[in-house]
Amino acid sequence: MVLLSPSRLHDCLQDPVLGSIGFLNEVMGRFPDAISFAPGAPHPDTLPDPDLQHYTDRFLRHLTERGASTEQARRMLFEYGPSSGVINDIVCEALRRDQGIETSPQDLVVTVGAQEGMLLVLRALFGSASDVLAVADPCFVGITGAARVLGVDVVPVAEAERGIDLEGLEDACRSARRAGRAVRALYVAPDFSNPGGGRMPLACRHRLLELAEREDFILLEDNAYGFTAATGSELPSLKALDTARRVVHIGTFAKVAFPGARVGYVVADQRVGLPGGATRPLAAELATLKTMVTVNTSPLSQAVIGGMLLEHGSSLARLGREKAELYQRNLSTLAHTLDRHLTGTAPEGVHWNRPEGGFFLRVHLPVRVDAALLEVSAAEYGVLWTPMEQFYVGGAGDRQIRLSCSYLDPREIEEGVRRLAAFLTKEIGT
Amino acid sequence: MVLLSPSRLHDCLQDPVLGSIGFLNEVMGRFPDAISFAPGAPHPDTLPDPDLQHYTDRFLRHLTERGASTEQARRMLFEYGPSSGVINDIVCEALRRDQGIETSPQDLVVTVGAQEGMLLVLRALFGSASDVLAVADPCFVGITGAARVLGVDVVPVAEAERGIDLEGLEDACRSARRAGRAVRALYVAPDFSNPGGGRMPLACRHRLLELAEREDFILLEDNAYGFTAATGSELPSLKALDTARRVVHIGTFAKVAFPGARVGYVVADQRVGLPGGATRPLAAELATLKTMVTVNTSPLSQAVIGGMLLEHGSSLARLGREKAELYQRNLSTLAHTLDRHLTGTAPEGVHWNRPEGGFFLRVHLPVRVDAALLEVSAAEYGVLWTPMEQFYVGGAGDRQIRLSCSYLDPREIEEGVRRLAAFLTKEIGT
Repeated sequence: MVLLSPSRLHDCLQDPVLGSIGFLNEVMGRFPDAISFAPGAPHPDTLPDPDLQHYTDRFLRHLTERGASTEQARRMLFEYGPSSGVINDIVCEALRRDQGIETSPQDLVVTVGAQEGMLLVLRALFGSASDVLAVADPCFVGITGAARVLGVDVVPVAEAERGIDLEGLEDACRSARRAGRAVRALYVAPDFSNPGGGRMPLACRHRLLELAEREDFILLEDNAYGFTAATGSELPSLKALDTARRVVHIGTFAKVAFPGARVGYVVADQRVGLPGGATRPLAAELATLKTMVTVNTSPLSQAVIGGMLLEHGSSLARLGREKAELYQRNLSTLAHTLDRHLTGTAPEGVHWNRPEGGFFLRVHLPVRVDAALLEVSAAEYGVLWTPMEQFYVGGAGDRQIRLSCSYLDPREIEEGVRRLAAFLTKEIGT
Repeated sequence: MVLLSPSRLHDCLQDPVLGSIGFLNEVMGRFPDAISFAPGAPHPDTLPDPDLQHYTDRFLRHLTERGASTEQARRMLFEYGPSSGVINDIVCEALRRDQGIETSPQDLVVTVGAQEGMLLVLRALFGSASDVLAVADPCFVGITGAARVLGVDVVPVAEAERGIDLEGLEDACRSARRAGRAVRALYVAPDFSNPGGGRMPLACRHRLLELAEREDFILLEDNAYGFTAATGSELPSLKALDTARRVVHIGTFAKVAFPGARVGYVVADQRVGLPGGATRPLAAELATLKTMVTVNTSPLSQAVIGGMLLEHGSSLARLGREKAELYQRNLSTLAHTLDRHLTGTAPEGVHWNRPEGGFFLRVHLPVRVDAALLEVSAAEYGVLWTPMEQFYVGGAGDRQIRLSCSYLDPREIEEGVRRLAAFLTKEIGT
């Protein structure tokens, strides 16, 4: 029998972060009755009815209204279709309507979730081993995972309470230059980062765009949680402020529609120079790369998402409004319940942030968070959470935990916080 | 405005093969009335009705019959779900029933088409820059494309008329060893290669398995066209003959169901050694890698494919039977019409092979095939085909064209061959 030695397999399979995620899943499996603040999955109430035909039909009607024959529309659903996607016009309209992002279908690629978008962008942009990816730290594991798969080097830049540490970023650019390298791009989620929960202030967005121009790097903006902003409190995305085509904007329908569609998108309106002085969109290069990764995003899934958007006036904001309210309610319940149960009684050194949106909140502890501590929390107090260390490049953040409130109901959140408060006061304070 | 220099982008974007595919699409776009033997897409008559709800419901019933609650089944359709897939049991049953491949759901990963399967397998197995991928030459561009994305070096081994050149393969292993490298895997499509059209005889399969064992490499078996074999003529796949777990078996539902689902699978029952002597399936490693590429394959698409399989007695063969007959009919029409129009009158040096299945047939010409020749064929004779050079690693095969008959009807094939015969006798024979 073939027994493969791990040393001959690609080294991202021996990654400590993935090991810790495996451990987390294992613990969750052993304590099914614990209240879990771990999964960042959308709330079940936000998932659609199983009758999806309805959405597919709506999308097919959209195609025929635009001149396709019924047979052509049917074929579009089942054949390979263009690698760049089949709902680009609808997504562009939504980006224009909701965020004031003016882009064309040719500058957009529909991807298998935001994850494939990240992989494609990294593969296209990082053509040289001397290029470095800067990431807001702590950081979504999807981008660092994609970087590991592709062998792209990553440098962390601290996510400050009020946006990203711009001086740290400038330092990172200078250090790279001194080493004969270059920061090619910065990954950042300005509207409610996962796991940090931070939101970048408007002034910081402007300064970041200026810095990107000055230091000649690309901004990879992840907008997965942008829709969760409270109505009226929205800030313009980096892409909406981008006058110099510095921003590659990555989005997903996983949270605003449903994860099972596996549909995301990348706006990449940068131009690539061709011999002879012509140019073509970076999005076209991404579509070419995509033929070697997944060929195309299931047109079936795209049709369902396209139909859902059309039913909501081609608006992500309208599609996501009720969901955003649910997540705002949950986040506020979480913060208020933490206040109620821990303010004044929390052990010294226990404090938490107050995200204005997104799915996540962070709690700082005065002790190192390890597997044994999670085990005690699960076994003796019936409450689960995610250690933050895995989200830090280089492993800082080992005294923090992440609480996700997206998957729970308010009563579960309240009971979960009661258990967490008991755990913290009894196990941490002593 | 950001203008990206191609020299700073990943080099697979400046690939000559992709350039030629772009050219081909461009020519096809300019001659919409030409009969095209170029696209290897499934015939439109084989695509399902737009009523997909039916299949989704069938899959949901399967889940509830196995103990899931209605709500759990509904959630499985819409949530992220396991990275390894949700229809693994159904696919395993089909592989057992149709091909005698005994495998377990844990040893299988559902992927975004065969393409993602290839990418994941290459990324997992090629952990060292000294590893080399051998490919049957000419070769499906999907595997060489995935290798380019990942920077895996490729060495061609000739596809002989009667299977792969085993001596050439042994030589390649020896040469690699002398250079301090190793052939880590061979990519091969034993049942009707694309574009070669070849089928590997049973004896060659056995000898290939022995060689893989002796030289310690993995066989990546692509079975996309296996279902097109004439009933009763089927040969056992490499995986069905594999007693030493040498074979990673890659399949897709693109041709046997429909491409738009983007569902494929990988059987990877090799074991990976863990510290302490334990092992885990290679499929589990692939699923881990998949979290960094696409997270998971759309459960919605999986549900449609799962439902289609269940409706056909969990049998790929039954699902594909009518389609296989259509493709057999088309292939036979193509070969007979070539005989009728060209035998005796073909210019010297024009000859073609007689594939027993698959979508493709090859014609050898006595002259070099280039863009200008395709242009003449399209503009003056109204017939399109694919130059074979792009399928060869290193660019041999520049005197061959590929004819695909999957997308056409018999009358179109006959008319296309009439045009092709006129083109060949008038333009090549002089």
